[in-house]
Parts: sequence; structure tokens; C-alpha cells
Amino acid sequence: MSKSSERNAIFASDNSAGVHPKIRRAINAAGAKHAIAYGKDRYTETAVAKFQEHFGKNIDVYFVFGGTGANVLGLQAITEPFHAIICADDAHINVDECGAPERFTGCKLLPVQSEDGKISIARIEKELNGFGDQHHVQPRVISISQSTELGTVYTAREVKALAAFAHDRGLFLHMDGARICNAAVSLGLNLKQITADVGVDVLSFGGAKNGMMYGEAIVFFDRKCSEQFKFIRKQGAQLPSKMRFISAQFEALLSDGLWQKNAEHANRMAALLARELRKLPEVRIVPEHVDANAVFAILPKRSIDRLLQNYFFHVWNEDLSQCRFMTAFDTTLKDVEALVAAIRKSLRT
Amino acid sequence: MSKSSERNAIFASDNSAGVHPKIRRAINAAGAKHAIAYGKDRYTETAVAKFQEHFGKNIDVYFVFGGTGANVLGLQAITEPFHAIICADDAHINVDECGAPERFTGCKLLPVQSEDGKISIARIEKELNGFGDQHHVQPRVISISQSTELGTVYTAREVKALAAFAHDRGLFLHMDGARICNAAVSLGLNLKQITADVGVDVLSFGGAKNGMMYGEAIVFFDRKCSEQFKFIRKQGAQLPSKMRFISAQFEALLSDGLWQKNAEHANRMAALLARELRKLPEVRIVPEHVDANAVFAILPKRSIDRLLQNYFFHVWNEDLSQCRFMTAFDTTLKDVEALVAAIRKSLRT
Amino acid sequence: MSKSSERNAIFASDNSAGVHPKIRRAINAAGAKHAIAYGKDRYTETAVAKFQEHFGKNIDVYFVFGGTGANVLGLQAITEPFHAIICADDAHINVDECGAPERFTGCKLLPVQSEDGKISIARIEKELNGFGDQHHVQPRVISISQSTELGTVYTAREVKALAAFAHDRGLFLHMDGARICNAAVSLGLNLKQITADVGVDVLSFGGAKNGMMYGEAIVFFDRKCSEQFKFIRKQGAQLPSKMRFISAQFEALLSDGLWQKNAEHANRMAALLARELRKLPEVRIVPEHVDANAVFAILPKRSIDRLLQNYFFHVWNEDLSQCRFMTAFDTTLKDVEALVAAIRKSLRT
Amino acid sequence: MSKSSERNAIFASDNSAGVHPKIRRAINAAGAKHAIAYGKDRYTETAVAKFQEHFGKNIDVYFVFGGTGANVLGLQAITEPFHAIICADDAHINVDECGAPERFTGCKLLPVQSEDGKISIARIEKELNGFGDQHHVQPRVISISQSTELGTVYTAREVKALAAFAHDRGLFLHMDGARICNAAVSLGLNLKQITADVGVDVLSFGGAKNGMMYGEAIVFFDRKCSEQFKFIRKQGAQLPSKMRFISAQFEALLSDGLWQKNAEHANRMAALLARELRKLPEVRIVPEHVDANAVFAILPKRSIDRLLQNYFFHVWNEDLSQCRFMTAFDTTLKDVEALVAAIRKSLRT
Repeated sequence: MSKSSERNAIFASDNSAGVHPKIRRAINAAGAKHAIAYGKDRYTETAVAKFQEHFGKNIDVYFVFGGTGANVLGLQAITEPFHAIICADDAHINVDECGAPERFTGCKLLPVQSEDGKISIARIEKELNGFGDQHHVQPRVISISQSTELGTVYTAREVKALAAFAHDRGLFLHMDGARICNAAVSLGLNLKQITADVGVDVLSFGGAKNGMMYGEAIVFFDRKCSEQFKFIRKQGAQLPSKMRFISAQFEALLSDGLWQKNAEHANRMAALLARELRKLPEVRIVPEHVDANAVFAILPKRSIDRLLQNYFFHVWNEDLSQCRFMTAFDTTLKDVEALVAAIRKSLRT
Repeated sequence: MSKSSERNAIFASDNSAGVHPKIRRAINAAGAKHAIAYGKDRYTETAVAKFQEHFGKNIDVYFVFGGTGANVLGLQAITEPFHAIICADDAHINVDECGAPERFTGCKLLPVQSEDGKISIARIEKELNGFGDQHHVQPRVISISQSTELGTVYTAREVKALAAFAHDRGLFLHMDGARICNAAVSLGLNLKQITADVGVDVLSFGGAKNGMMYGEAIVFFDRKCSEQFKFIRKQGAQLPSKMRFISAQFEALLSDGLWQKNAEHANRMAALLARELRKLPEVRIVPEHVDANAVFAILPKRSIDRLLQNYFFHVWNEDLSQCRFMTAFDTTLKDVEALVAAIRKSLRT
Repeated sequence: MSKSSERNAIFASDNSAGVHPKIRRAINAAGAKHAIAYGKDRYTETAVAKFQEHFGKNIDVYFVFGGTGANVLGLQAITEPFHAIICADDAHINVDECGAPERFTGCKLLPVQSEDGKISIARIEKELNGFGDQHHVQPRVISISQSTELGTVYTAREVKALAAFAHDRGLFLHMDGARICNAAVSLGLNLKQITADVGVDVLSFGGAKNGMMYGEAIVFFDRKCSEQFKFIRKQGAQLPSKMRFISAQFEALLSDGLWQKNAEHANRMAALLARELRKLPEVRIVPEHVDANAVFAILPKRSIDRLLQNYFFHVWNEDLSQCRFMTAFDTTLKDVEALVAAIRKSLRT
Repeated sequence: MSKSSERNAIFASDNSAGVHPKIRRAINAAGAKHAIAYGKDRYTETAVAKFQEHFGKNIDVYFVFGGTGANVLGLQAITEPFHAIICADDAHINVDECGAPERFTGCKLLPVQSEDGKISIARIEKELNGFGDQHHVQPRVISISQSTELGTVYTAREVKALAAFAHDRGLFLHMDGARICNAAVSLGLNLKQITADVGVDVLSFGGAKNGMMYGEAIVFFDRKCSEQFKFIRKQGAQLPSKMRFISAQFEALLSDGLWQKNAEHANRMAALLARELRKLPEVRIVPEHVDANAVFAILPKRSIDRLLQNYFFHVWNEDLSQCRFMTAFDTTLKDVEALVAAIRKSLRT
């Protein structure tokens, strides 16, 4: 296999993409002058206002450096160390953050078997026991990824049902929205309709996977949860000093529908890729539904080995020969055609 | 007092500065194409090579988002939770990181009274007790800031003596180098001469305070300390996904002497400011030595109140009426003149 | 249901038992005079020697207050926070310690489905992935309970195979031996034969469930693991001040075969109970093997409700109607007969 | 120096004492029968009632294994990790618990210079800054030891003033009452008068230093602080399984004035020792006030070396040649006379 840095990484992940030109311009503009550090600047003011425009006035929003930081600090804000967090077994917080959630919160994660990335109330219910028993961790949060790690999307109704279920039992609903824009676009809804309106309590709003350079936001829909959050952020080493460069990016992303256009494009490229791959009899798309910007394809092992020589992508499940191809705001038609051609070629005996 | 975002923040901190044009260009260039995330990209390769060029081949270097992250994870790499970290009472890790060092490492910090920001072996020695006694935290690290929080700079000889003292007792020497470039320039030495060559074990190398947008590096001079560091970084939520944008900045900063030019300019502006202020009989510069890019001036209270209406800066010590003015790579002669004029004016009855 | 404190707790757990008279006498004898605190006393010297007599000279042993303390600190000694600990899904550390293992170690627990309390290499193997991948917790310890939570016992050969498997992959084998005496007696082996001789690295040796009042021991079979343990114990709030009262108990337990006699009796009572219950066609013993001092019986729901009015015991699995009855060193023949009679009566329509 | 275990430890600490006969009898009585584990037994019920008798009805009380456990979990109950705990520089939590408070709570400890073990409002006030500033730990608790580490006792009025000062600023007052009985007796007040009545919020009530074998209690005077405490205790590995043996001890200690008699005797022996030592011109008692059961004496170095051959005691401050002699419920007149004679002898040239 050739060196990673020389292979085509276009489908490796949406965080191997570049930075959208509008966002680059916003960054450059913000760099011209001085501004007070740690968020007391006008870029941050404006960006917060943009968030309120999209998510409603009654929110609190905090910017952090990265996605893991957003998830673990958002969770820390609503838990005590003896609590438990229920999530999908394939959730990013469960398998891709090197134990950061346990380390930051002290909590136990209770993984629930997902179906194509989604978790159901029926399965969650089985983890809800031991309430009040001092020997047992106390379930406190249900955390879901939207879109999921498998490129599927919870409907607004599904989220609402999960939120109602959670709230009825005194639990919070946390959403890892590293790709929430792709989900919103997929559902044809705005950002508020799939979060505040359906009962999400805390949201990690992803920037880097939708055209930003770096920066994520934690959105609190109940301000009681965020009263002390500025201290949690600083102690968690996630307070950016030159905050304005994150703020300027968010302002650009949330203006003129850029968040939407970027996500729409990525989703469309994934749909196209799936459509083309379905034409190949040796290839199976699993999960069948390609809701957002990920395509999971089951390919013959031999074909995978060949492809990996020129492309860098994740073999999601080695046993199943299941490969993940992610699209981004800057994936081109040509990129998709080239990949399809390469896969086609790799299938030949 | 007028709103913070409207006041002149030019002397508030070196992290209220903008981004150096060369670094901005490097960022823009890195954004054009795709690159594998999490550091397996060629920008990171090159940046690491640059660090080795400056600090020697036998180092390990890891990029993180911010300065607090660099400090706490570097310290975590060389401590167990029952250890103690000895530092200046006015050290950033002791007073400005909201307890992040304690939270991440589990260690106790043993603050030692500093003299103008520096700690002496004599004072450190008094904290070195209880070795082997199970009731006592075990001293493990001496941490110094270079340049110090008070704008003074340890000489290479002083650092060497501290390192020898530490190593003799089985301790590590950690350096918070948020402003290490200002220190090097002040001493007329290169980066290796004030770190690797004088016994520093772990260094936080600051970027944001010397013209970068974001990003710090942790440099390990003994690779045994960093064997498992990649896991510590990820679990500490400090692994940047689009790493290349930090790497590209570091590459630019460490090329063509940019790190030096930026720091030199900042130091020069501070020296100029000090020189001008010393002319004013009502003003006292304390500490007397202005080694790097900070000027601490004792002003009449009334004068401070007036100044604060137009300038945003830190009143370092209210009891002493001691104010901090920081310069940066982009502080201009005119900025200095304007501040001096404003101070002059504020002194009038 | 009547008040808990008034119901018969004889089968609730082996820690609802009293204190063996010999141990009570040892405690009383140790209380007569003064002794230096924190373990520098002759009782502790003697108790440590007793452990060496039973487990071999090359061990390190530390006394702590309780079983959870023994487990979490023993695990902390051999892990870093980014490690993972593999254990049975029904392991005490996974379900009965309120998340203490995660909180103390920072690690993630990877639960593996047990078969009657035991975990197999085949199932463990599936959790062993992501080695060297910075996004994944790094498997570091396999932890087993001996006897298991379901009253079964790993054979020496099984433990040896698990240890070899672990060591081959750079992992440690940890044993939660809250009931290790019951296991040894069940296998007809001595304590060394089922620990040091078969590759166990760290053992929690239980006292309270085999006739002691309080106190557990952590036995390290590789002294490199315990070099810094005294600090871990103290910082973990598990250093008993009047240590000698734990030491005196261990001395008594490990003298004249008391550990054996107590465990033998408990096991015999469990075997008897199982034999009697097997005669009742409405009752099923699951797991079938009653290796140690626990009997799990599936009873009709109605019968359980009746029994609970006079007996305090754990309904282990409500869905299965599976109840746990534990015996102890002081369970009498009469106690067993009375329980059998009560169950018999509860089954009548 | 002879082996520690052979030297006379009678003045080493009050935790080198034995167990009071009444408490031994209570333990023995509690061991006769079975009882449900983890505190659902009648001994615990009674012991809790005893605490309410002494401290008032509106308290919550939890038993734990040891003093460090009591301190760190009591503090954890009223803090977030970004808080700071203000205490004396010589406080047990600051210097004798191997960093357990930082490790369990995540908080920073802010040590304040004590005068003879006590801290004053004036000195505390200097640590109270940075409120609301995200870079600074947020002061949340003032913790005092009663009696202090130097054998002095805060008056009720002093405690009340500290509590009022704390509450006015939104802080809690925590009391490390490892020797609270000695303090109460010294002041001629009952337990409620020096805690609940003067504003203490959380108290570690010590057992082991006043005649118990093991076991401490955490008393919460505001039940809002303890709502979730049972989970904190279990996750902190401080939930005793055979709880009744701690409960039975507390019941005995709090009955028939035993707590008082034990403490009175210890205090009287200390007063006697001090009186005798004051007669020796080469000896200075520092602190001068011997309020409780500790005598600190400054002896010539040569004399200390001689004494240490037969007595085990703590050289509290080597620079000052200050030695600590503690008395306990079982220190006899003869013990005191023997020590005085030994000191007298050690002073001869």
C-alpha cells in the first residue's frame, strides 16, 4: 500500500476536506486587527446572535476547539461522576474518543446495540435499571448522533419520542451533531426543528465536518445546564484564546444558508455515489438508506485491497468487508465518477 | 468604562494580536486540497521536521489546540496522580487555568514564591520533603515559565542549574514556553540552546502569542516520556482533526526566522514602551528588567481608571496599582506613542 | 413486604454473616495495647508473612478497607487512563460498584458476555482491537471474578489459559477474589495454585465474605506493579490508620486453615441447598453447577413474593425469576432446612 | 534507632491507641447474628438516631471507613471540579492525605498561613478573588480542623464568624472533626453547639482517634448537600459492607457520654504533660495553648535523638526541633510520668 499522505483522501472523511472559501475569507477578515481574547470580541457577539437566530433566543452557546471537546464537556455539564450515559454501541463517544467521555465525566457509558446507527427506546429501556440503588450507576443522559455514524438520520418524530422518553424518566437528551447540518438537510427541516423543537437538551454543533477549519459549538437549550459552563470549558482546556477566529467561521457558516448548501452538496454526492454503486452487482450498500453524506459499501476483499492502494478510506467492518466512503462540501462529480471507475476496475478479476 | 469590545486591546495581551500575514498565507495554502485527518498529512510531516531542525533530532513533538492543553497534557505525560508539581505562585498553571492542571493530572501544585516571576533553587528546596512518605504527595516536576509571567527571562545558566537540581532528585523540568520565542530572542540564543541543551524535559511551545491563529506544540526531549502520548492527547480532547492547519502555521513560523522576527519586534516595542514610561516620574516599572514583551507599570489609581476608559489591559495587582502592557509582533511605534501619550494625559490632575 | 431489618438475611449475602469467633478473638487481642498506626506494627508484619506463606515469597501485599477499594486501586496500579479493562458483563466491577472503576482509573470497561459468570478467550478476543490506534482505548487488563458472580469457579487450567492469552498480548490478568477461598476449596487446590502458579498478576483477596469483619488485601505477584502502590492506596483513601485490626484478622484467617474451613462449610451448605431444591419440580437451579457458595434458583413469581415477606435475598434476574441464595461460614443445617421448607411452602397454591 | 514496632508508641498519635472496652463489647455484640449489609440494619438505624440526638433532627449522616475518605467525599459533595477549597497550610487535607482531596474533587486547595493551626478571616479574604472569572478556580469551601493540627481549638464564636463570613460569600464551611470531641470538651460545649448551632455545613466526625477501631461519619447539616451522597460514597469506595460494625461503635461512643469521657481524659493527660514539661527550662511548649490532646514541645536536637530510641513520636518541624506528643483515652498517668522522666533524662548532658 502506498504512503497514506500520497493516497487520495477525498472519501476518507468529511474532515479530510478543505475549508470553504467563504469561511477562509471570514477568517482572513477577522485577522486584520486586534481583538480582546477569550470571546469578549464582536465576532463572538455576532456569532452567538447567529446561533440564536437559528436555534431560538433561549439558548446558551459556547465555542470550543474540537468535536471530542464539545461532546465530553457538554456531557460533563449535565452529569455527576456516578451517572451513566446511554448511547449507541457504535457511537463516536463510545468507540472513537479514546475513553475521553469516561475520563472527563467519570461516568460509565452504557452502550446499546444500534440498528444502522440508531438506538430504539425498546433497547434503551433495558439499560434503565437500578434507579436509586447505591451500587448502580444512575442513568442520566441518552446521547444520540445525528446524522448517525452509519449515515442514517433520525426523523424529527424519532428524536421527539426519544426526548419525551428521556424527560419522563428524568434523563437528558444529548445530541452529537458533528454532522447535524447533513441531517437537517436530509430531513428538509431547519436546525431548530430537529433540536430545540423536539426536545434536545444539549447539542454538539459540528463545524469542521461541514467546511470549517476548526471549531465546534455546544448549544444548551436549557440555560440551567450551562450556568457554570464557562468554568468547565476553561478547566477542560477548551477555551480558545483567539476565539474570534472560530466565531468568524461560525458567523459565515450560519449566514446566507452556507451550512445548508455545504451539507446539501455533500449529501447529494453521497446519494449519487450510492446510486452508481447499486448498479454493480458485486457491491451491496449497507445500511440501505443513504440519508446523509456517508455511503457504506460491502465489497469483495480483493477489491478492497486494490482500492486501498490509491484511496485512503476506512474499512468499517473487516468481517463484513464493509467500507465507508464519506463525501464533503467539496467533493466533485468527477471525484465520484473517478471512485466509481476505480471500484469497477477493482472488481475485475 | 466603555464596552470591552470597543476599547483598544492592543496592549491587553499578545493573544489579542492578529495573525501574521505569512502564517495566514500558509493556512490558506493548506486549505486548497484534501488531506488525511489527525496528522497523517504532509504538512504535519514537514512541521515536525522543522521542529527537529530547531530542537534536535531526538525529540518527539505533538500539536494541540491551545496553551492550557499543552501544559496539562505535557504534565500528565510525566506524572502520576500522587505526584506534586512545583511552580511559581504566579505561574499560569497555578493561577490562570481554572484548576486544569489539578483536574487533568490529579497532582497537587506546590506554589513557590517567585521573585519577578522566577523561582529559585533555594525556595524550591523547601518544598522537597516527604519523599517516600505515603502521606505526602511526591514532588516530581519543576515547572517554569519562559519568559515568565512578569516578563523576565531565565538565563540559560539558570535553566541549566534548575534542570541539574531537578534531575539530581529524580524530578523533571517542565517549561511553559507560551512565550519561549521572546525569551530566546531576549537572550540572543536559539531555541535549542535554551531547552534541549540546558536540560528541559518537556516544553509547551507557544504559537498563538507569537503570530499564529491557534495551535501549540508539546516537545519531548526524552522520548521515553512520550511513548504513550498520542493516547493522552486524544483522551485529553486535544487531537485536532484537520491537523494540517496547525502544522502549516508552525512550518511558516519556524521558517525564515519568522519566530525570531516576530518576537524581536514585540520585545523591542516593550523596551521602547518601558524607556518612555521611565521618563515619567509618577510611573514605576516593576519588575525593573523588561526582558521580553511585557511591561509592568505602577500607575496612580486615578490614572488607571482614566486609561481603562479607552484601553483594555490587565490591572495585574490592584493593591500595588500595577498594570500589565503586552506587546506583540504587530504592535506599531504609533501604538506605543499613543499609549504613552494616553498615560501621560491620564496623569494630569 | 416487611421491613428489611426484620427479615431473615441469612441467605442475602455472605457479607450479611457475622464474624468468626477466632477472628473476633484476634481483634480483641490486638486492641489491648498501643501500636504504631498505618501498618508499621507487628500484626501487619506477621500478616504479611502469612500471605507470603500462602502465596509465595515474591509478592507484595497491601491491606485496604473494602472490596471495591481493593478492586479499583489494584486496577489503577496497572493501568493508565486511556486503557481498557475487559471483564464479564455481570462482573462486580461492571455492575455493582457504581462506576468506581471508571472513576478511579479513568479507563473504559469493555464488558464481555459471560457464560454462567465466566468469560471465554473467544469472546475476549473480539474486544481486542484498535491496538496502537489513538482513537481507541487500549486493552490492558482482563479481570475475572473467582468464584464468579454466579457461583461458578474457573478451573486452574482455565485461569492459566486466560493468563497466557493475556500475557501474550501484553495484558495483565486481574482477579477479583472476593470469594477466592470458596474457589480454592471448590477446586481442592491451595491459594497459590490458583493464583501465582497460573499467572494471575493482581488479586483482590476478600476477607469480609469469609468470616472477617472488614478488610481486604491486594496481592501483587509482580512487584514492578506495586512499586508506587503505597501512594495510590493513601491517595485512594484506603490506608487504614489502625491497620493492625485488619492485619490481626488476616493473620487469624490464614492460620490453622481457617480460611479453608470457613469456605468449605459455606460451599457445603450451598451444595446441600441445591440438592434439596433440585427435588422440587417447580424449581430450576441455574447455573446448574453450584461450585461455590451461591445457589441461583428459578422460582415461580408468586412464590418469590411470598418468600420475600420473611427472607431478604436478591432477585438476580427479574425477567427469569432467578433468585440468589448465598451461604456463609455460619449458615447452619437448620437454616438450610428452614429455607427449603419456606420455599416448599411458598410453592403451594 | 530501634525498630519502630518495638518502640513505645503511646504518644505517637491518638490513632496508635487501642479500642475502648465498651466499644469492643459493642462490636462483639453486633457480630453475633446476621444482618443485612450496606446499612439496612438496626445498628445503623440506632446509630443514626444517636447522631440526631446529638446534632439535631435535620441532619443526614453517612458512615465511611476512614478519615481521609470522610474529608474527601464530604468535600466532593459540595464542590464542582473548578472550585477551590481554602484551608490552613498545615491542614490534614493539605499535607497529610497524599493529594486525595485534589484527586477526588478535582479542586485546587488554597492554603492559608495558619496561626497555631487556626486560620483567620483576614487571611482567607486575600484568597477570595477571581469570582466569576473563567480563568480562576472559584472559591467554594472554607475547611477548618477542630481541634486543629496544632492542638488548638476554635471557639464557638470563631467558628460562627467563619461560617457567617463564608455564607455571606456563597461558600460552605467544612469541618474536619477528626478530633471534634476533644474540641467540644475543651470548650465545655456539646457537639451541636460547636457545629450546627454555629453554621458548620459539613462535618467529618472522627471515631478512630477517640477510642473506636475504625469508622468515621460525615454529617450534613443541610440535606440539600447530601441528596446524592449515597452514590458518591459507593463510587468513592467508602461504603462498608458489614456496616453494622461501624454503627455499633458509634452507638456506643455516643451513649452514656463515652465520647466525652474519652476526650476529657485525653485532654487532661495533655494538660498534665504540658504542665510538667513547662517546669523544664530547656523545653518550650509551642503553641503555648494546649487546648486539646496534643502537646508540641521544642526540645534540644540531642535530646530528641535520645528520646527517639525508645519512643516513637513525630518531629513536627525539624528546623524548630518541635516535637508532637499526642494523648488518647487510654494514656495513663504513669505513661505521662514515664515520658516526662525520659525527657528529663534526655536533657542531661
